Amino acid sequence: MKNFEFRNPTKIIFGRSTEEKVGDETAGYSRNILLHFGGGSIKASGLYDRVTTSLKKAGVTWVELGGVQPNPRLSVVQEGVKLCKEHKLGLILAVGGGSVIDSAKAIAMGAVIEGDVWDFFLGKSAPVNALPVGTILTIPAAGSEASTASVITNEEGWLKRGFNSELIYPRFSILNPELAFSLPKFQVACGITDIMAHLMERYFTNVSHVSFTDRLLEAAMKTVISLAPQVMNNSEDYDAWSELMWVGTIAHNNLLDTGRVGDWASHDIEHEISAIYDIAHGAGLAVVFPAWMKYVLHHDLDRFAQWSVRVWNVEMDFFDSEAVARAGIQKMEEFFRSIGLGTHLADLRVQDDRLDEMAGKCTNEDTRTTGNFVKLDRNTVREILVLAQ
Amino acid sequence: MKNFEFRNPTKIIFGRSTEEKVGDETAGYSRNILLHFGGGSIKASGLYDRVTTSLKKAGVTWVELGGVQPNPRLSVVQEGVKLCKEHKLGLILAVGGGSVIDSAKAIAMGAVIEGDVWDFFLGKSAPVNALPVGTILTIPAAGSEASTASVITNEEGWLKRGFNSELIYPRFSILNPELAFSLPKFQVACGITDIMAHLMERYFTNVSHVSFTDRLLEAAMKTVISLAPQVMNNSEDYDAWSELMWVGTIAHNNLLDTGRVGDWASHDIEHEISAIYDIAHGAGLAVVFPAWMKYVLHHDLDRFAQWSVRVWNVEMDFFDSEAVARAGIQKMEEFFRSIGLGTHLADLRVQDDRLDEMAGKCTNEDTRTTGNFVKLDRNTVREILVLAQ
Repeated sequence: MKNFEFRNPTKIIFGRSTEEKVGDETAGYSRNILLHFGGGSIKASGLYDRVTTSLKKAGVTWVELGGVQPNPRLSVVQEGVKLCKEHKLGLILAVGGGSVIDSAKAIAMGAVIEGDVWDFFLGKSAPVNALPVGTILTIPAAGSEASTASVITNEEGWLKRGFNSELIYPRFSILNPELAFSLPKFQVACGITDIMAHLMERYFTNVSHVSFTDRLLEAAMKTVISLAPQVMNNSEDYDAWSELMWVGTIAHNNLLDTGRVGDWASHDIEHEISAIYDIAHGAGLAVVFPAWMKYVLHHDLDRFAQWSVRVWNVEMDFFDSEAVARAGIQKMEEFFRSIGLGTHLADLRVQDDRLDEMAGKCTNEDTRTTGNFVKLDRNTVREILVLAQ
Repeated sequence: MKNFEFRNPTKIIFGRSTEEKVGDETAGYSRNILLHFGGGSIKASGLYDRVTTSLKKAGVTWVELGGVQPNPRLSVVQEGVKLCKEHKLGLILAVGGGSVIDSAKAIAMGAVIEGDVWDFFLGKSAPVNALPVGTILTIPAAGSEASTASVITNEEGWLKRGFNSELIYPRFSILNPELAFSLPKFQVACGITDIMAHLMERYFTNVSHVSFTDRLLEAAMKTVISLAPQVMNNSEDYDAWSELMWVGTIAHNNLLDTGRVGDWASHDIEHEISAIYDIAHGAGLAVVFPAWMKYVLHHDLDRFAQWSVRVWNVEMDFFDSEAVARAGIQKMEEFFRSIGLGTHLADLRVQDDRLDEMAGKCTNEDTRTTGNFVKLDRNTVREILVLAQ
């Protein structure tokens, strides 16, 4: 186990009808805010009305910025920054999924500086301050509601880059599982896959003596696997949604990587696919993870065997741990397919003519490696993409 | 799963030599503090010197208050309150285990009021403010380093009472597993039992659809069970200590009861034993829990069977879940005995002539019940104490 620091101050307000508390929570920080959201779904569902009613009741006024798309764009972030400065707004309230929340976090950092917020994503400079962010989560997936992360896509060159800072932990996040009832099945499946991916990125580590966090991660993965069919088959299963939504938050709130080092190569590789092809992040992960696993399997067969046995209920074969590891990977692929996702690039209509370009972007033209469990250079990333075809 | 709110802002600084950071962390809050500790062990071990060196380097001055005993006393708390007021101290730094930290939390609340801090413990009034508390943990056990709880014993009448408030979450807690190397084996065993008890109090719930937190709790219990022999047999096993220390914190930081309702009758009953006989809390819990379990077993045999199978590796007997449940309890008793603790009141030299008195105090002379999984009145508490003999 490695030395670590951990602090997660996000206040979670969880359960039925909790969005009605948003006005009072918000007013504790500011009475003049940016209300940030995606497409029209929050208006169609009535959520927008409930939120604005609560804000009005608490004496909070707002400026609106909708239109956040999956793979949230820098241009929208910059529009939000401009609005915050113009109207002297004091909090960004994100109503939506990970894309809206990530966008809100970037706006929160951009609103308090003179320069360009994209510099933070490029690592050219570091923020020292940010406006507070609050969220109302509508889909269990990205875990952004209690994380330090924001992932933004710059349309110039379609660069998708992530950034982490404790400054952008949301101050509060409202999680009402009922809000997930109206999600399209494909989005649900992508969310489930994103949660599994966050757990698997953390699970595959070279740090030893991490049996506690291993077991916590296994607990979370088993929960996702057992609940996924329930929410896929009955979109109004509150009990299943509530557990899944809470797993989604815990999967990415930095608790489960305390003392260990996650991998994150699959996320990096997927970001290059979704930046170019604008596919859903979860759909991309269902393709990258099996290929990545088949490539790195031999780096630590024992860890893969433990994962197969404990998470996927594969019976241990004490004389052939590779077979056990491969059986786990196969069960994972079957799981992704069972919720309607493809496990090959062909399913995403990604052609083979841009694999090398993606491998290049992922490794900054081979000037850096990606991943920690196994460090991957441009060639190995390309080989993984070939395996994923 | 029930609606809940959860927020834990304590900053954890974990790993080797982390006590050297205490000066800088403290200085962020105050440069004039109360240094609070127990007996002489922190001086003998050199910890006191390392802490004060770090404080001096950061320009922090302090007033000292040592002498905290297990089952921390109200009189010491009141002495601390007086010192804080006299010297206008701005933070309480607790260096020790749960008793020292609980005492520090009570001082932190008392230092900012005119009245008597004991009123909070009696539920007569509620705090609106508190001084910040920082901790350096020397024993994984109580979980007070990241909890809202403080348990204090009033020598007048030997009343032991707990109090919870978000105001007393420590601002930072420094966890260096090396500090546990020098603990006496009996204290280690009591700490392990306290951690297990915190997990079991949360596990036995009547709330349904809590499979995620069930699994997290099981993960934590399995970790404790597998690591306990390692730290008992090799007091300098850093890897085992580090995992155990982190479990101890997570077991009681309010995460693992999100969406569920714990029981806590065993803690209440144990508090009455240790208040009168001044025995170690963990030693008392090793006696109360088996008796409590045997008494409440039939309330939810399925839950007990799940616990036996998943935590204690009992093989499921699908035709006799009671036998499975009892086998789990037996394994737990064997576990407590394997780390050197007794599982009967006789082992603690508690006579049968005060059982009724303890049952009376635990239920406030039969005017309230204790426990949530099964509500216990005075008679049932006495029956459990009889079972524990």
